[in-house]
Amino acid sequence: MRIRITEVGPRDGLQNIKVPIPTDAKVRMVDILSESGVEEVEVSSFVSPKWVPQLSDAEEVFRRIKRREGVIYSALVPNLRGLERALSVGVDKIALFTAASETFNRKNTNATIEESIRRFIPVVREARNSGLVVRGYISTAFHCYFEGRIPPEKVLEVAVRLFDIGVDEVSLGDTTGRAVPEDVKRLLEVILRDFPPQKIVLHFHDTYGMGIANVWTAYSEFGINRFDSSAGGLGGCPFVPGASGNVATEDVVFLFEQSGVETGIDLRRVVEGARVIVEATDGCVGLQSHISKVLERGRL
Amino acid sequence: MRIRITEVGPRDGLQNIKVPIPTDAKVRMVDILSESGVEEVEVSSFVSPKWVPQLSDAEEVFRRIKRREGVIYSALVPNLRGLERALSVGVDKIALFTAASETFNRKNTNATIEESIRRFIPVVREARNSGLVVRGYISTAFHCYFEGRIPPEKVLEVAVRLFDIGVDEVSLGDTTGRAVPEDVKRLLEVILRDFPPQKIVLHFHDTYGMGIANVWTAYSEFGINRFDSSAGGLGGCPFVPGASGNVATEDVVFLFEQSGVETGIDLRRVVEGARVIVEATDGCVGLQSHISKVLERGRL
Repeated sequence: MRIRITEVGPRDGLQNIKVPIPTDAKVRMVDILSESGVEEVEVSSFVSPKWVPQLSDAEEVFRRIKRREGVIYSALVPNLRGLERALSVGVDKIALFTAASETFNRKNTNATIEESIRRFIPVVREARNSGLVVRGYISTAFHCYFEGRIPPEKVLEVAVRLFDIGVDEVSLGDTTGRAVPEDVKRLLEVILRDFPPQKIVLHFHDTYGMGIANVWTAYSEFGINRFDSSAGGLGGCPFVPGASGNVATEDVVFLFEQSGVETGIDLRRVVEGARVIVEATDGCVGLQSHISKVLERGRL
Repeated sequence: MRIRITEVGPRDGLQNIKVPIPTDAKVRMVDILSESGVEEVEVSSFVSPKWVPQLSDAEEVFRRIKRREGVIYSALVPNLRGLERALSVGVDKIALFTAASETFNRKNTNATIEESIRRFIPVVREARNSGLVVRGYISTAFHCYFEGRIPPEKVLEVAVRLFDIGVDEVSLGDTTGRAVPEDVKRLLEVILRDFPPQKIVLHFHDTYGMGIANVWTAYSEFGINRFDSSAGGLGGCPFVPGASGNVATEDVVFLFEQSGVETGIDLRRVVEGARVIVEATDGCVGLQSHISKVLERGRL
């Protein structure tokens, strides 16, 4: 079973970086990542530039990247206005975001979970009419800063609603990075009762260093083969020392390739893609992954 | 099943650091780690100071640490001369080291594996006569810089020889840090055919970021509950950017505690123990663990 990676570095990896990153660098990053062998690149976000100024050049990035055949180019879309912008530049796939924690969702989107899902209904309809694939993100699927541990049944409830309104897949996000393999097990035991593993993507952050163990558990015990990850482990807040982002694509690739599981991904290209951002920020942003550090020392 | 940790920071974590670390700092580090709840502290090494100058103060460290009841204080010992030194300061337990890779063992100890094991025979006899517990380390148990992947059968062969000459336990070391959970599985499937899990300790390095996933696989799939780890993830070479050492004790503790498995270890004390070395080297040595970085940001 081949591993399918959605490279979220250009979106999740960059969105919280305060140093402005030139559009050129983003385009170069996406182009390099497109050549690395990942299945999908989440290129940007069509939320209001007021909320995520770093990604306000979403249209321009989409217009300028080289589309590589076979690669899916996706973007975050919060509402119909966002969808229009996304359609205007020909995205292949959109992602809607809600949460499993009511408190987190209210703080993040100023709506209850049910309200946010209802707002998605016309967006999903329009997107599907336009031939787009639709992903639903469920953030805080394991743990919330405000509510603590999230019961798997709550996550299932949100997933059921998302599939009901027509999303094609659901990505379960460990927003705080606190999940451990036991949590992954508990959640997937519940989710996979109702949905096949092909419909489920896992999205881990490596803040507490548990990302790789979680990926392996989801794969080896539950047959999940779709993961979100970020080149260089980009993400988190660059002004907070040691903040860490998504589990790093190159670390995930190393894990699977060493285990004899094919990814088709060239991890050196992935790291090269991430380094564009290190250079564009004059080193203000550093790479978080283990493999990038091994490569800096010159041996793998 | 409670997790039992051998804290190897004061030995494996420090031995390759080129900046001289004052004996005072080592004593303070060991004393703090003694209070953290770990079962054993590997305090130092009685190899020739010519080979490991950093640990040439082994006797003095042993004389000055506060022995806490219930904690085992161990040290590396290469030969009878080392054993005499260890006995003179009352160590509780010694560790002998060999490898599963002939090439690595020759480069490391200038002997074949069989020669090194034969040299251990009188050391084990004397140590047991003196009431000491004896560990045997098998380094390169998964992979060798020179020989590549090491067959599990070769590791078993070395383990059989070590138990034959009377060691109480064997610690399997992933010296290069390249092992992934599949490798752990392959090795333990072979080793545990002949030996019970209580006799086996696993010793992972986190160079490639696989340490936590390996620990979890050994525990959850094979019932191994004994691990070597190093406070702060100390180890590796501090002059090589990003070099990383043993899997960090605090990361291992976080993994298990979040999984509902008791460790009895206070991870804040562990990090405090490691910080002694950061201060003693004026920041030349940095902490590698995820949890220490989370703590620096002030929340766990």
